[in-house]
Amino acid sequence: MDGALKGVRVIDLSHVLAGPTATMILGDLGAEIIHVEPPKGDDAREYGPYVGRVDKDRSAYFISLNRNKKSLVLDLKQEKGKAILRELIAVGDVIIENFRPGAMEALGFGWEDVQRINPRIIYASISGFGHDALPEYASRPAYDVVVQAYSGLMSITGPEDGPPCRVGSSVGDIIAGHQAVIGILAALYYRTLTGRGQRYDGAMVDGLFAIMENAVVRYSVEGQIPRPLGTAHPSIVPFQAFKTKDDWIIVAIGVDKLWTQLCKVLGREDLSNDERFRTNPLRNKNRKALVSVLSEELEKRSYMEWAEVFEKGGVPYSPVNNIRQICEDPQISYRDMLVEIEQKGVGRIKIAGSPFRLSETPGRVYRNAPALGEHTDEILSSLLKKTDAEIQSLKAEGVINN
Amino acid sequence: MDGALKGVRVIDLSHVLAGPTATMILGDLGAEIIHVEPPKGDDAREYGPYVGRVDKDRSAYFISLNRNKKSLVLDLKQEKGKAILRELIAVGDVIIENFRPGAMEALGFGWEDVQRINPRIIYASISGFGHDALPEYASRPAYDVVVQAYSGLMSITGPEDGPPCRVGSSVGDIIAGHQAVIGILAALYYRTLTGRGQRYDGAMVDGLFAIMENAVVRYSVEGQIPRPLGTAHPSIVPFQAFKTKDDWIIVAIGVDKLWTQLCKVLGREDLSNDERFRTNPLRNKNRKALVSVLSEELEKRSYMEWAEVFEKGGVPYSPVNNIRQICEDPQISYRDMLVEIEQKGVGRIKIAGSPFRLSETPGRVYRNAPALGEHTDEILSSLLKKTDAEIQSLKAEGVINN
Repeated sequence: MDGALKGVRVIDLSHVLAGPTATMILGDLGAEIIHVEPPKGDDAREYGPYVGRVDKDRSAYFISLNRNKKSLVLDLKQEKGKAILRELIAVGDVIIENFRPGAMEALGFGWEDVQRINPRIIYASISGFGHDALPEYASRPAYDVVVQAYSGLMSITGPEDGPPCRVGSSVGDIIAGHQAVIGILAALYYRTLTGRGQRYDGAMVDGLFAIMENAVVRYSVEGQIPRPLGTAHPSIVPFQAFKTKDDWIIVAIGVDKLWTQLCKVLGREDLSNDERFRTNPLRNKNRKALVSVLSEELEKRSYMEWAEVFEKGGVPYSPVNNIRQICEDPQISYRDMLVEIEQKGVGRIKIAGSPFRLSETPGRVYRNAPALGEHTDEILSSLLKKTDAEIQSLKAEGVINN
Repeated sequence: MDGALKGVRVIDLSHVLAGPTATMILGDLGAEIIHVEPPKGDDAREYGPYVGRVDKDRSAYFISLNRNKKSLVLDLKQEKGKAILRELIAVGDVIIENFRPGAMEALGFGWEDVQRINPRIIYASISGFGHDALPEYASRPAYDVVVQAYSGLMSITGPEDGPPCRVGSSVGDIIAGHQAVIGILAALYYRTLTGRGQRYDGAMVDGLFAIMENAVVRYSVEGQIPRPLGTAHPSIVPFQAFKTKDDWIIVAIGVDKLWTQLCKVLGREDLSNDERFRTNPLRNKNRKALVSVLSEELEKRSYMEWAEVFEKGGVPYSPVNNIRQICEDPQISYRDMLVEIEQKGVGRIKIAGSPFRLSETPGRVYRNAPALGEHTDEILSSLLKKTDAEIQSLKAEGVINN
């Protein structure tokens, strides 16, 4: 089954996470991804966990992000490497990079340069603060933890009155990667109407600021500075984790009707008649008293006992799954969200699948991740029509890998 | 300036957050969004903060999410309301909904029904566990906090050895919304090639599981169950927040070279020669000792003093901004990421802007959010060619708003 983006060719100069997240999604949707790596490889090949032993081709971190892609090694410090990149750009639909602003320009592959080679191309950059930036920000280094902190997300994540916490996955990179895909697809659609390419200038800080939800208006309208609230919600109560006799349980009372149901299944009809807790605004106002009463009740039984009670009583609840529990969850397996790939020379590995369930062209893991430079010869001969002699000479000069 | 999606018409039956996030993005990119609301309005109109007083048209939560959209009130419990929805579907490019699975089918607007009306339409659903689900999951209620907990994200977010924490913004909904946009845009592109519509079946749990990054392979390859680490990274050290004399500071040593620079600016060349800390794998192994030494050093001066030292020394750092600080940040303002809109009858409000910086067709806030049913008459007369008499009669019967 073909993907929705079959026939779209992406020249992927990105590394580690934000850019590779974008090209992973485009690849899952059927685009051809040519991952151009420097001779030492994408830095993500240096990240654990490794399968068996430390080796550029055995990083499970790299493998999970780079399924469905081809790898071509090119030394862009050599003029002949640049010449090959120019040939790739000429036959590409999309080019994507996440170097520090200025790096592509220094190589001779800024937006103006690339547009001269191929005016139909869509040129996507992802950086910490944006290419179009105030002078003191443009080349500022921005790792995920910098962006989570700078954007304000860290200041609203963590225990109440506790220290700020980082979201456990690198959402600074990952959200920016998703947003770049949206920019690229919108530009591709626009190109089908106009024939013109364009540039996408994504900033990781903008990306997280855009998803801050009610926190921004809480400040801009009410002057409040939102703080971390543990597992709780700033305006819905109760809507958080409680400790049972053994594990945590989430109780999510999104509407008043569910409050009555919760009180009933707890055998605490007195609470549902308690004027302090009758509506969500009142429960917000008397949050401390309410959380304290519920904590006391919920500690009386185990997670499994409460789950059964809530299931029967129609009260929205959830376990706080750890990574083993979610990886072994039957619904995750039913939805093909954990897929096993055969990684050549490495063995079978389970990685997260694609969440893009389209009925005609679902996102898919078509094939395993490439070894470093695995597709160099293939791409040079089939796509760029180089002769064997030319390829051998490029190898001898170290422009491409052996 | 037109958006990339000019001419794309979206029939938006969604409410509160996951669906409205998707249509906000599509609207920022230039699509026409017809937000079909029940007579009582989108539930998000009941969410604070409110501007001035509690009123369906004064919720800043709703306003920030629904800029650029039109509002049409339709009572889908009445046959005449359904007839109007059928007419809208016939002229729509995309339909999007985030009811509990089964609800659209019960109304007579399941995927098969809608496809019969308009085979070119793209039909996007977002639910907690997916429409295609194991029987016990399909209609399970899934609020954001449920999904953050179920997916495993909560189990890796929070202080080390502390309780699980919810990400401070509703990323369960917001990631699912971004992914739905990607599915819709891929399907739109595919439709330009084939003329065929298709269905997108997004699950919030799949969406978060797909962004769990290295956590999945840590378990599937190494059998580790990742745990929360405060602000720290599971495999890069130091890469976290430290307390200074006053505020927190982020220090992000992404490569070994930066470690030497850090030691130098700290005046602790002894540390850069310390065999325990020479490489990132060694710093990981001796994380406790290293974090303890650095904590002691960094507590000696204030945030501003360290920021100056790190800036000069080329060490990646960041403040942990709170929401006021990021809202007042010059770079956020330079990038138009905080925009002021004139909300009719309400006044001027600052909301987050669009992060989709495309050179030809940038994402934009074109206009303010609609009052409940503000565009009902306009859409019925211009788009569906109803006469004034027909509109009056629909009003009298309560099919649409007055």
